[in-house]
Amino acid sequence: MRHNFGAGPCILPQEVFKQAAQAVLDFKDGLSILEISHRTSEFEGVVDEATRLVKELLNVPEGYSVIFLQGGASLQFAMVPYNLLPEGQTASYLDSGIWASKAIKEVSTFGKANIVASSKPDNYTFIPKDFEIPADSAYFHCTSNNTIYGTEMFSFPETNVPIVCDMSSDILSRVIDVSKFGLIYAGAQKNIGPAGATVVIVKDEILGKSGRKIPSMLDYQIQASNGSMYNTPPVFSIYVSMLNLRWLKSKGGVAEIEKENKAKAYALYTEIDRNPLFKGTCTVEDRSRMNVCFVMNNPELEKPFLKFVEDNGVEGLKGHRSVGGFRASMYNALPITSVHHLIDLMQTFAEKHQ
Amino acid sequence: MRHNFGAGPCILPQEVFKQAAQAVLDFKDGLSILEISHRTSEFEGVVDEATRLVKELLNVPEGYSVIFLQGGASLQFAMVPYNLLPEGQTASYLDSGIWASKAIKEVSTFGKANIVASSKPDNYTFIPKDFEIPADSAYFHCTSNNTIYGTEMFSFPETNVPIVCDMSSDILSRVIDVSKFGLIYAGAQKNIGPAGATVVIVKDEILGKSGRKIPSMLDYQIQASNGSMYNTPPVFSIYVSMLNLRWLKSKGGVAEIEKENKAKAYALYTEIDRNPLFKGTCTVEDRSRMNVCFVMNNPELEKPFLKFVEDNGVEGLKGHRSVGGFRASMYNALPITSVHHLIDLMQTFAEKHQ
Repeated sequence: MRHNFGAGPCILPQEVFKQAAQAVLDFKDGLSILEISHRTSEFEGVVDEATRLVKELLNVPEGYSVIFLQGGASLQFAMVPYNLLPEGQTASYLDSGIWASKAIKEVSTFGKANIVASSKPDNYTFIPKDFEIPADSAYFHCTSNNTIYGTEMFSFPETNVPIVCDMSSDILSRVIDVSKFGLIYAGAQKNIGPAGATVVIVKDEILGKSGRKIPSMLDYQIQASNGSMYNTPPVFSIYVSMLNLRWLKSKGGVAEIEKENKAKAYALYTEIDRNPLFKGTCTVEDRSRMNVCFVMNNPELEKPFLKFVEDNGVEGLKGHRSVGGFRASMYNALPITSVHHLIDLMQTFAEKHQ
Repeated sequence: MRHNFGAGPCILPQEVFKQAAQAVLDFKDGLSILEISHRTSEFEGVVDEATRLVKELLNVPEGYSVIFLQGGASLQFAMVPYNLLPEGQTASYLDSGIWASKAIKEVSTFGKANIVASSKPDNYTFIPKDFEIPADSAYFHCTSNNTIYGTEMFSFPETNVPIVCDMSSDILSRVIDVSKFGLIYAGAQKNIGPAGATVVIVKDEILGKSGRKIPSMLDYQIQASNGSMYNTPPVFSIYVSMLNLRWLKSKGGVAEIEKENKAKAYALYTEIDRNPLFKGTCTVEDRSRMNVCFVMNNPELEKPFLKFVEDNGVEGLKGHRSVGGFRASMYNALPITSVHHLIDLMQTFAEKHQ
């Protein structure tokens, strides 16, 4: 039994793997999902269902389009200003981590980014909160969850400026009010599905105003009006995303999985705070439920602890090099039993090393 | 037994489907290929092998980079001028089909396209040949195979202007001299692998000269220097591409598959020319080996013929709406036995309807 705490691409439900493997062998009438045309009614049904499930699970209001694209969040870093930032105007960005700072860097091709606040001097250990968004910003961009540092935004600013949010690592993990956002994007490879697809949820009325000539593939309006099928989509990634969204619905949807995610996070953070060998790395109020970052009070024990858990079926616990220590990523598909297993190992290790 | 003549995403070898399905269940130590980090040594090995196999199979010379990207050929339509067309300069394009014309349309965001020749007035039934490429063109763009119309370029112009070629539908189907090209791109979903990946082969020395600010994800130099891993790549699509490239190598490589592709095309075109019910739709010398387009002399027989072959295990033979009739796509993985099966059905049908 493997316990996959990897940061992403990450664990998906075992039943999704089984269904996906079956479709690779025989999706329909003996044909593999990898050899069917994306223009068949069967695959159009897949795209339709995946889109509908995103809308249903996130309670997406009227007036928003849901599209499946390629290129991950990194391509969105450029598509957002291409579509939303008119020549000569400024966009506001919250710098809460390396992905936010990469998004900021991409603005320079198109115009000016105004950084409203940054926690970089503190190695991104918290989410900046006291900041102002200039009313003339074309949009305000933030990152809802910072995978590397283990921080998460639990409140979003009240503003008339359209909020653009990179939700790559916590979308579908908790209830959000989509109507508060102008645009949400997320690489699929955490809670949506496998790598190779990107979901964008965009309020239609904010589009078509940048005044720029946009290459067709990077134009949200073109992608939306073609129903994610402007060109050949990433067929398999969308198919597996659909399977995973079905699984989430069968679990009771986002509100139910949020309860489980809260329980998983509560259990692990409680152990980190209680166990004398360990300590968390970021501000308590901003602690992410998706990525739990922690270190050991005695750094010399970190290597032996990592070996100990790896010998006991734990995968992907090594922290990102810019934080060190450990990172337990606990996406939707990670069962709470895996969290309990990790906690047991922390306790066993502590008993031996106190 | 299904005979998949679909135009793409298309047939891949059955053994590739089996290996791919197995990896979805267990790629390494019980973990699915869909849940492993792209930064693991195992997946880095996959990208390395896939890249090496493209180089080996196409005999890519020194001084060229091979990269796996996302977004299909359609994103290349924009990336090519972004990277290769300096402000104020002109790029030359050969208009040999709908994909070529889409590539031409995307240039308008960046500058001017000079159409050196077009077969559009003749519904793209041939490849234009007598044209001149102005010496001051930033590059010359062509499409080596036109999926919809069933034409293929069997010779490329001699010019000092860098040749950029969209080889989406015939790459790896025949021996080419990569050194004659500045840049080759291909959506994976014909002879490379499943949808969701794009291969680019680019001569390093032509890059870095457009003088434009290029978004990182669209910058060939950034993608090349990051070894196709600037951000999370389409893991599964690259993995299956690697499996398929291994298969091609095991078959003896491109020169061997070219012989088979010639034999398949020869057999089917011979039947089309011989059988009084059928006729080809394009100029004989430009007939594609990948996509064989044909119609019936009596259009009223087309529906019954399509039903007849579909009842006999043939998939995807319906022609594109802009040509009508039939299109037999015969990519590398389509066995010659499927072609013989189709020919048998054509003969049986002719016997009944003469």
